[in-house]
Amino acid sequence: MPGEFSQENTGNGKVKHRDTKEKRDLITRLSRIEGQIRGLQAMVEQDRYCVDIVTQVSAVQAALNSFNKMLLSRHIKTCVVEDIRQGEEEAIDELCALLQKLMK
Amino acid sequence: MPGEFSQENTGNGKVKHRDTKEKRDLITRLSRIEGQIRGLQAMVEQDRYCVDIVTQVSAVQAALNSFNKMLLSRHIKTCVVEDIRQGEEEAIDELCALLQKLMK
Amino acid sequence: MPGEFSQENTGNGKVKHRDTKEKRDLITRLSRIEGQIRGLQAMVEQDRYCVDIVTQVSAVQAALNSFNKMLLSRHIKTCVVEDIRQGEEEAIDELCALLQKLMK
Amino acid sequence: MPGEFSQENTGNGKVKHRDTKEKRDLITRLSRIEGQIRGLQAMVEQDRYCVDIVTQVSAVQAALNSFNKMLLSRHIKTCVVEDIRQGEEEAIDELCALLQKLMK
Repeated sequence: MPGEFSQENTGNGKVKHRDTKEKRDLITRLSRIEGQIRGLQAMVEQDRYCVDIVTQVSAVQAALNSFNKMLLSRHIKTCVVEDIRQGEEEAIDELCALLQKLMK
Repeated sequence: MPGEFSQENTGNGKVKHRDTKEKRDLITRLSRIEGQIRGLQAMVEQDRYCVDIVTQVSAVQAALNSFNKMLLSRHIKTCVVEDIRQGEEEAIDELCALLQKLMK
Repeated sequence: MPGEFSQENTGNGKVKHRDTKEKRDLITRLSRIEGQIRGLQAMVEQDRYCVDIVTQVSAVQAALNSFNKMLLSRHIKTCVVEDIRQGEEEAIDELCALLQKLMK
Repeated sequence: MPGEFSQENTGNGKVKHRDTKEKRDLITRLSRIEGQIRGLQAMVEQDRYCVDIVTQVSAVQAALNSFNKMLLSRHIKTCVVEDIRQGEEEAIDELCALLQKLMK
């Protein structure tokens, strides 16, 4: 089915317990983005002008980028700091590898 | 309601008639992206690891970027070329303004 | 020699006559960027803090991006428009291919 | 003088002692980029075609990005890890603030 994630991308088995407020905040942002994607579908259905659609896609990309920045900051401030304190260097290599991908 | 577009962004009234195949292709891409967004919501619900979520967000951003590149190419090859041939310079200024935003 | 351009990248033989003012403006921007690169070398020599260097690199990238946006706008407003008026479609395909690369 | 850095950007007084090999590597990359900028000036002087210049600017941007990724990785693996081990949280906030800027 289109849109489903393949298991191999997400199968490292690690979990991250987020508190209720943080989780609700992340879900709310994603719901808003989902609404924006449906808005884009409606624009295509209605033969809307290309420039207007491209502009709205940019708005969605900005919202996803903002979501990612929030998630990454919290990841560093919690997971990474904890791992370093416990002498686990793995989190650092993982973070650097992730940033290489994000800054491509 | 979250996710709805404000009218002022989309109110220039221009339309763009796309053929059935092109329209179906655009809609299919957006449906797949919508599925990916719902997949992200499930990942947050399931306390999935931050790095896995950030990586999936990057995949969605790449899909949106690919959508935007396709739409922009078709816009240039149809709308912009036609307008220039009919002596309407407006499409050129509009395209340049759009690219300034996309390249920010 | 490092820094030199290989000939195959630049060998299509096309030229673009720019007026004196435009040329001077482009050269001035590049001289400023060259000065910024030398400033970065001095920062490394002086053992300056990583975060300060990364921040300055971002400033140089913004200056290059601004240079590129200016050049691309003028290209569209002159070369592309002219070619379309003369019935040469090639400029359009070339522009679309270029944008695919810039939006990667 | 164009291209010089204003002092306020770089005045936090922190230093970072890099070993000789790392320093030479960073300087070499910057020298190569400086050569590329001079190559761009020559292209403008010689009335080279816009598309060729824009393409070369993209190559320079990729080289700067690669420089920045290398510097950031080393920063995290040395400065940030050390600071966290010494109980200094400041490096984490600084890193997060930097990433917010880089991911804009």
